[in-house]
Amino acid sequence: MDSHRDVRMDAGELLAFAAAMFKAAGLGDADAGVMADSLVGADLRGTHSHGLIRLPFLVARLRDGGANRQARIKVVREAPGTALLDGDRALGAITATRAMEMAVAKARTQGIGFVAATNSDFIGACAHYAMQALPHDMIGVAWTNGFPGMAPWGGRRNTIGNNPIAFAAPSGSHGPVVLDMALSVAAGGRIRLAAKRKEHIPKGWVLGPDGEPTDDPADLAAGGALLPLGYKGYGLAVFGEILCGVLTGSNILGEVPAWFTDTDRAIGNGHMHMAIDIARFIEVAQFKRRVDLLFEMLKATPRVPGVEDILLPGERAWRTHQAQLVEGIPVPRAVADDLLTLADRLGVPAPMALS
Amino acid sequence: MDSHRDVRMDAGELLAFAAAMFKAAGLGDADAGVMADSLVGADLRGTHSHGLIRLPFLVARLRDGGANRQARIKVVREAPGTALLDGDRALGAITATRAMEMAVAKARTQGIGFVAATNSDFIGACAHYAMQALPHDMIGVAWTNGFPGMAPWGGRRNTIGNNPIAFAAPSGSHGPVVLDMALSVAAGGRIRLAAKRKEHIPKGWVLGPDGEPTDDPADLAAGGALLPLGYKGYGLAVFGEILCGVLTGSNILGEVPAWFTDTDRAIGNGHMHMAIDIARFIEVAQFKRRVDLLFEMLKATPRVPGVEDILLPGERAWRTHQAQLVEGIPVPRAVADDLLTLADRLGVPAPMALS
Repeated sequence: MDSHRDVRMDAGELLAFAAAMFKAAGLGDADAGVMADSLVGADLRGTHSHGLIRLPFLVARLRDGGANRQARIKVVREAPGTALLDGDRALGAITATRAMEMAVAKARTQGIGFVAATNSDFIGACAHYAMQALPHDMIGVAWTNGFPGMAPWGGRRNTIGNNPIAFAAPSGSHGPVVLDMALSVAAGGRIRLAAKRKEHIPKGWVLGPDGEPTDDPADLAAGGALLPLGYKGYGLAVFGEILCGVLTGSNILGEVPAWFTDTDRAIGNGHMHMAIDIARFIEVAQFKRRVDLLFEMLKATPRVPGVEDILLPGERAWRTHQAQLVEGIPVPRAVADDLLTLADRLGVPAPMALS
Repeated sequence: MDSHRDVRMDAGELLAFAAAMFKAAGLGDADAGVMADSLVGADLRGTHSHGLIRLPFLVARLRDGGANRQARIKVVREAPGTALLDGDRALGAITATRAMEMAVAKARTQGIGFVAATNSDFIGACAHYAMQALPHDMIGVAWTNGFPGMAPWGGRRNTIGNNPIAFAAPSGSHGPVVLDMALSVAAGGRIRLAAKRKEHIPKGWVLGPDGEPTDDPADLAAGGALLPLGYKGYGLAVFGEILCGVLTGSNILGEVPAWFTDTDRAIGNGHMHMAIDIARFIEVAQFKRRVDLLFEMLKATPRVPGVEDILLPGERAWRTHQAQLVEGIPVPRAVADDLLTLADRLGVPAPMALS
């Protein structure tokens, strides 16, 4: 936290506050809870770029009509192991949570469930949905396409999404293994943070609006492009477009508007959710023991000087999650102020601690 | 081709020759055909590192007992959408082909099929299996774990596989979109080729046996390590171990022997295969039109100077495939000589063109 005026708040209190804000913005009780959970969940794992900082943008989407307050999600097509949902322009976390629940239910009877969604919106941190599989002793996957902020391999303009993908699997005595990655070299949130702090970034992360490599992070918002994680990251992003966009009949590439500025426009992107029931392959206890062994074998690797620990994906986020459940979530003063302003406008009582 | 003595051979003739070699090495007719198809298929797409050059190694695995000539693949567990196969130590392409066929059959009735295999062997180019979904208007995925030739992120020894993954999807008027990628910065085959040619490689591809960055590709075979494609490539490799190794009850990480040297040892790795039936989500014709649009939109991206074309994954391989079906497959003299020596030993008549 940058300032002594930053606050640290209890996760439960933030959840209730965020839910009250979404209700005041027009969502029903259940949907408001799902939205609050998706944002506070990201904060709890330390992914603050996808946490409460985004609440005002999402409320703006509801206010300006880009997202639908009274959305009714429908099953458009269904097979025993798959489904296609129409999100009816609900905020993305609502449709994504529903899709993942359905994937888990299908996996319970079919071994695997794959549920995709169209007519949707920005879904935030993909890890949140992949992790819905964990309490069911399942492996979860979530993938979305989105605003084309990235250049394709060999290109110098942003024409494809950096289409984040997340995987989650349970362990025994360690935290869950959770990978949540955009397919650009660096995530957009990381660049925007550097811009806010007026730092330089390594060349190779971003192209400027002129299509040339730049070390100024402000060039991204000025019309630049994220660079893909090599041709492999680009290739995966293409399959993100195919599985989330084309397969679902959703917008792809430049058809997807910017959720953070075009608050009055439907995003129309798509996403996919998959659950795999571990018990259909191996005893769950054995699976978890072997994941523990995977941790131990990898951590035993000799390290590059200066590296203190070989980390498994999601290990740091899990530690942050466990700590913040006890110690509370840090809320930067600027974020708290934005939330207080919005609460005032919506007539929602703000927690004392935030003021 | 390096030498005027290199030959170019008809794909069908090579298929028949390779199948005859596998039959002479003890495989039944069907399995021999599957093996030949997997190798010649890789050559046809220009992935010569995974083509006929590997036939002598695979025959050595059958000869030395690491792989089982008379394997009987069994279904160990099954749910409507999933199955676990025991490969009975068959050469990996046999089990992988069977698993993919089963995934396609399940997808036809369930919308999705996910079939994993254990007690298996090296499967070669993953694209080959993902592409089995294409004639059925399905999207295919194949992923395998393997010999731990790569360092984890922050590590300086090879303790994890570079666990290649492949995706395939059909288009309308373009070739299929096919991504086949190892999760290291550079593929092992690329490094071995550079070593053979006594070239230098960029630092950042490989660590030497001392754990230090090196530009000498020979350091890899001397006990070095491939470097992962950043922490994201490493993270995906971890999920390759989880989905292919842990979930299937197979060997993981350092438990997996080197298929190319330990020809008398079972590999015991695992792999997974998935098929998604497009028609359960969207009309197939519309899907293909939209994939064509994806090609066109991406190709319209302004390019970095010197880049002639924005390529889709698998586009170059598809052109090579189409050309080589007509013009034949180039067989380097050294590979031809190895095949002739083996044919002589196995008593298989060699095609005239190869001599």
